[in-house]
Amino acid sequence: MTLEFETIAAISTPPGEGAIGIVRLSGEQAIEIADRVYKSGSKSLAEQKSHTIHYGHIENPKTNETIDEVMVSVMREPKTFTREDVVEINCHGGITSVNQVLQCVLQNGARLAEPGEFTKRAFLNGRIDLSQAEAVMDLIRAKTDRAMHVALKQLDGNLSHLIRNLRMDILDTLAQVEVNIDYPEYDDVEEMTSKLLIEKAKLVKASIQQLLATASQGKILREGLATAIIGRPNVGKSSLLNYLLDEEKAIVTDIAGTTRDVIEEYISVRGVPLKLIDTAGIRETEDIIERIGVERSRQALSDADLVLLVFNQSEPLTIEDKALIEATNQHRRIVILNKMDLPNKLDLTELETVVEPESIVKTSILSKSGIDILEKKIADLFFTGQTGERDATYVSNVRHIALLNDAEAALDEVISGVEAGMPVDLVQIDMTRCWDLLGEITGDSVQDELLTQLFSQFCLGK
Amino acid sequence: MTLEFETIAAISTPPGEGAIGIVRLSGEQAIEIADRVYKSGSKSLAEQKSHTIHYGHIENPKTNETIDEVMVSVMREPKTFTREDVVEINCHGGITSVNQVLQCVLQNGARLAEPGEFTKRAFLNGRIDLSQAEAVMDLIRAKTDRAMHVALKQLDGNLSHLIRNLRMDILDTLAQVEVNIDYPEYDDVEEMTSKLLIEKAKLVKASIQQLLATASQGKILREGLATAIIGRPNVGKSSLLNYLLDEEKAIVTDIAGTTRDVIEEYISVRGVPLKLIDTAGIRETEDIIERIGVERSRQALSDADLVLLVFNQSEPLTIEDKALIEATNQHRRIVILNKMDLPNKLDLTELETVVEPESIVKTSILSKSGIDILEKKIADLFFTGQTGERDATYVSNVRHIALLNDAEAALDEVISGVEAGMPVDLVQIDMTRCWDLLGEITGDSVQDELLTQLFSQFCLGK
Repeated sequence: MTLEFETIAAISTPPGEGAIGIVRLSGEQAIEIADRVYKSGSKSLAEQKSHTIHYGHIENPKTNETIDEVMVSVMREPKTFTREDVVEINCHGGITSVNQVLQCVLQNGARLAEPGEFTKRAFLNGRIDLSQAEAVMDLIRAKTDRAMHVALKQLDGNLSHLIRNLRMDILDTLAQVEVNIDYPEYDDVEEMTSKLLIEKAKLVKASIQQLLATASQGKILREGLATAIIGRPNVGKSSLLNYLLDEEKAIVTDIAGTTRDVIEEYISVRGVPLKLIDTAGIRETEDIIERIGVERSRQALSDADLVLLVFNQSEPLTIEDKALIEATNQHRRIVILNKMDLPNKLDLTELETVVEPESIVKTSILSKSGIDILEKKIADLFFTGQTGERDATYVSNVRHIALLNDAEAALDEVISGVEAGMPVDLVQIDMTRCWDLLGEITGDSVQDELLTQLFSQFCLGK
Repeated sequence: MTLEFETIAAISTPPGEGAIGIVRLSGEQAIEIADRVYKSGSKSLAEQKSHTIHYGHIENPKTNETIDEVMVSVMREPKTFTREDVVEINCHGGITSVNQVLQCVLQNGARLAEPGEFTKRAFLNGRIDLSQAEAVMDLIRAKTDRAMHVALKQLDGNLSHLIRNLRMDILDTLAQVEVNIDYPEYDDVEEMTSKLLIEKAKLVKASIQQLLATASQGKILREGLATAIIGRPNVGKSSLLNYLLDEEKAIVTDIAGTTRDVIEEYISVRGVPLKLIDTAGIRETEDIIERIGVERSRQALSDADLVLLVFNQSEPLTIEDKALIEATNQHRRIVILNKMDLPNKLDLTELETVVEPESIVKTSILSKSGIDILEKKIADLFFTGQTGERDATYVSNVRHIALLNDAEAALDEVISGVEAGMPVDLVQIDMTRCWDLLGEITGDSVQDELLTQLFSQFCLGK
């Protein structure tokens, strides 16, 4: 049984020119509204079977003007994305055409969907839980294979399953505690109850810690590892950048909103997604040498999780090089001695006194040597001893991580409470709070405002 | 009966993040290939009826790894876009997800489609003619309602129908001429034949001229009227721009390729599509006043079909203003006296000696007055006496216009040939050439290289 909602509509394909654009409707009246604007030689959509596709035209019923030639998919609840009746109108993919079809269905009874509203309905109608809904968005935003894989696992419900088991454990324990309290005729009830609580709290805490241990990797897989390539002019930064971008063939340029300010480039190095910082800056600096100093690099550093520090080994270390070493001492860093095809003039022994010898890689990007070692080093930094973990459940979502941390803290309260001999009913409160916090991950216990805020981060039409 | 082609595949939705991404396959093996990567609890796609939709997962058959959760549409020939078997895989709309599904079908037997190849197959399989195929692309690129309407009419075959009728007329005449030549026993055969040719040539020429008369409007509807807003700093250029962009709500920003250099803005003023030139320049100039001179405006002018020349009527005309008048004398121009909310200091009588009085509009963008008059003036420039012509057949495509011009020239040769008393078989050649040229519009007579070149301008996945 689905809840009753207004019928919503939105453009569900990315904005821009493409071969196909889709206007999606969902709700009780989806088929009825579509029929108001759909014209074909044969039957109305209402007379068609579920999960079928029909050729026709979209016509404005007021002006009888044809808007586009379309294919319309009819999908009746409950086997749909939202568990409501869904109609998808596939139009010619131009901006104008898709917009006009949307306007037409809005004028004929549908309401414009809010961002994420289709997925929100899938959640409210019980098809997916909250962590799965969030996975839908992660899947769309995934920049690399592995990020997608993490999201897909979450969408399949792996995380939900784990969390639900933990909650069930906690609930059992709380029930047991209630029973013990209700039957205080046994002598050792206080002791038994305390023991039960502290044992369970420790067990659940261990599971949460195990999940949290995946968080930093999960977050990197999801968001990419912010990587800065820095170095003096002409040491080979832009060659390295271009080599990685070309070879990995996983370039994603991402234009945030409609502004032209932010273009992000992602590459996947042996499964590690790198989000390259300030690549425009790198390209520019190599072109217009006089403009550059160490300053620009310093700025790129502030956001970096990983620094690729490039030197030209055919020249001695300069003061600028040393300043860059100094500036990156606190960072996870790989030191690249480039231009190995030229005679060596950089004093390696001196260098090894100021950077960790194991962080050094020798390359010649020109003759394409040493780059495999660099790639292996990057991968090793993140997947040490973690082979075969492709199917592990990662926690990658900041909201989930925060909730798990809070849940762990609540368990700590339980443990220290019991140890300090606090009354069981006070300890119970902390245990219940942990149960609630975990429920927020799956959406089993969750506030309306949170839902609104969460789904508003989605893209339109999903 | 369709021709036999390899099965092709491409991403058919615009690049970027969206709720839905589509990978489309077309060809004899489309369903077979899709079945290799599609997993569901129930039947294979080959066992499903045409025009039905199925839930499942895309799985890499080599690794058994799940790539995405999908809805798959199965459409069997001939009632498909290409007249071949078509499968559309609707995935979660992320860049990575759609790309991976595409890679997976490519690894399992499909070939990556060239730009426009789906539409090309629709043409080669006889579902649409060439001018209709071109309309598909125009429809996708349409920036305003009217541009879309023009394209849609062309897709419906209006232009093709007109052209085919003209060709049939010419063919009849040529046949008649042959008959006359074969039976030279009649005395007046030469005279009759010449008369027939010259009459028909004049008739066809008149039709072609009628079509060509729509060309300049058609081209504007299709490509937008290149419009430059110019004027000194602080006369209100950016306010006007923003007002038009906000009010018309038909903004289309268009990012060419992946470079960030060209953003075009389109607005539709009472049905006239304006392509605004150098709007970035306008915004910038108002911000950083010292940078601007008349120079920048001069540059914007070079590409303009229409100039909106803005003055501040609360100040006397300056030397710069007069230089701008001078510079725009050769342009279609509307002179805007802005800031009517302030006291008048501009000498209107003087102004009317240097610009056409009827080109002047008085506005106050601040108090939103006079703008409706400005909009009417823009519309009047293009649709004088042309009400109700929304359903006219426009020629809007540069290729078509060129072919119509050549066909007209061929007819002129026919006419002058006959008048000069040239032998009928020579005149026949020109008439046949006209027939051929018109055939190139619909694709009835067309070279392979032209097809390749034409379809390569399409977007991927169409």
